[in-house]
Amino acid sequence: MKITLIGSGNVATHLGAAFKNAGHHIVQVYSPNVQNAALLAYHIKADPIDDLKHINADTDLFVISVKDDVIDAVAAQLATHQKPMVHTSGATPLQVLLKYSDQVGVFYPLQTFSKTKEVDFWQVPLCIEGAYEDLTTELIQLAQTISNKVDVVNTYQRKTLHLAAVFACNFPNYLYHAAQQLLEAHQLDFNLIRPLIAETAQKVLAQLPAYVQTGPAIRNDGTTMRAHLQQLGDNEDLKNIYAVLSQAIIKMGEGKHGVK
Amino acid sequence: MKITLIGSGNVATHLGAAFKNAGHHIVQVYSPNVQNAALLAYHIKADPIDDLKHINADTDLFVISVKDDVIDAVAAQLATHQKPMVHTSGATPLQVLLKYSDQVGVFYPLQTFSKTKEVDFWQVPLCIEGAYEDLTTELIQLAQTISNKVDVVNTYQRKTLHLAAVFACNFPNYLYHAAQQLLEAHQLDFNLIRPLIAETAQKVLAQLPAYVQTGPAIRNDGTTMRAHLQQLGDNEDLKNIYAVLSQAIIKMGEGKHGVK
Repeated sequence: MKITLIGSGNVATHLGAAFKNAGHHIVQVYSPNVQNAALLAYHIKADPIDDLKHINADTDLFVISVKDDVIDAVAAQLATHQKPMVHTSGATPLQVLLKYSDQVGVFYPLQTFSKTKEVDFWQVPLCIEGAYEDLTTELIQLAQTISNKVDVVNTYQRKTLHLAAVFACNFPNYLYHAAQQLLEAHQLDFNLIRPLIAETAQKVLAQLPAYVQTGPAIRNDGTTMRAHLQQLGDNEDLKNIYAVLSQAIIKMGEGKHGVK
Repeated sequence: MKITLIGSGNVATHLGAAFKNAGHHIVQVYSPNVQNAALLAYHIKADPIDDLKHINADTDLFVISVKDDVIDAVAAQLATHQKPMVHTSGATPLQVLLKYSDQVGVFYPLQTFSKTKEVDFWQVPLCIEGAYEDLTTELIQLAQTISNKVDVVNTYQRKTLHLAAVFACNFPNYLYHAAQQLLEAHQLDFNLIRPLIAETAQKVLAQLPAYVQTGPAIRNDGTTMRAHLQQLGDNEDLKNIYAVLSQAIIKMGEGKHGVK
C-alpha cells in the first residue's frame, strides 16, 4: 500500500517503521518541524514535507498521528484529497473524522512508544475501527501485515482502553520515577530495584493483579505505613500519593473493590 | 549449612526452596498454623513445628521470616538457643534483634514473591547486614550460594529500599488492578493491555523512568485529562488517584521533580 504519514512523534515513528518493514511504500512524512519530518522520512525512505499544501494525493491512506487537539484541523485539510484517512489516537472519537469524509477509521496501537527503544510491533495490540464494514476489513488486513494482535474496537471501547492504559502504563512509570528519586536521594543504585519492577509486571501477565498484591497496605500493616509516611518527610506530593494508593489497596483487601 | 526457617509465608517459601536447591539442610519449618508448616516442610524436606518450644537447637542459623510486628517476640524466644539469627524484613531495624543477641543480621530479598509464581532466585537482589564483620562475611557467603546479586546494605539504606519498593511494586500492581477493573466493567479483555504493562516495565530496565514517561499528563493535555476524569464517573477513589498522579507527572514535566 501507499501510505502517507502525518506526524513524526513516537507513534508515527514506530508505526512508520513497521509499515516500511512490511513492504509498504511510505509516500510522504509530514511534520510542521522540517527536521523531524526529514529524520523520520530518511529512516523510512519517504519524502519529508513541512506544509500540508505539499501533500501528494497519489496515496492509498493518510495516517494521522498528531496531537489529539490538532487531529480535527489536519483532517479538515486532508479531506480535500478524497482519500481514506485514519487517526491513531485512543482518546479521539471516529466522529471527529466523519465530519469531513466517510472513508475514515482508527488505527490505535495500544502500546507505549519511545524513540529510544525498539518495539516488536508483531506483539502490539492494534485496535481498528472503520466507518463502514468494507473499510474496516481493509484496515484489518493492513493491520495484520504488521501485528499479530488485531482487534476491532469501537470508539466507546477505545476510550476505556485508553483510560485503562493511563493506569497500567503512565502512572506506574511515574511511580518508578518516584522510587528512583527516593533511592538517588540516599545514593542507592536504581539497579537494585529494577528486578522488582520487571517481576511485578511479569506476575500479572499470567495472573490477575488482585491475586498477587503484596506490601504493607494489603496486609493493613499500619505500623509500616506510618513509618513510611514519616520517612517521606516534607515531600507532600509523595506522601499524598502514598496515602491515596495505600487506602485504595486496603479497600481492595477488604473486598470492597472486586476480588481479593 | 543447617538452617531453621521461622515462618511459612511468601518469603519463607521462596527462600526455603532456594536454600534447599543450593544443598543446604533445612532442619525445621515453624508456623503457628500447623498445615502451613507441614506444606512448606514437605516441599523442602524439613520437620514442621507449630510451637517454638519444639525448636531443635542443632542448627547453624535461624531465618526469621514472619510479620514485622512479631519479629521481636519470636527473636526473644529463639535467643535462648544462642545461635545466629537473621530476619528478612525490609522495614525492621537490626536493632530489634540486637536486644537479644549479638549474633544477628538481616537477609532481605528485594523482590515480590507469590506462592503461585516461581522466581529465579539467582536474579533476586539480597541485601545483607551483620552485627559484626565476620558475621556479615558469613552471611554474604551464604547469600552467594543462592543469588548473584548480593549487596551489603545497612538498616537506614534498607528502610529506603523498602519504601522505594512500595512505589515500584505494590502501587503499580494496584494500578494494574484498577486498569483490569475498568476493562472488565466494559467487557474488555485484560489481555489487551498486558503487552503494555510488560513493555512499560521493560523500558525502565535500561533507561530512567523520567525519560520514557508518556501519556496525557506529561504532555499537559488538559482536554484528555478532563475527559478521563469524567469517564471515571462516580468512582471517587480512581478519580482521586488519577488527579493526584497526573498532577505529579505534570510537575515532573515542568522539571520541578528532577530530570525531565
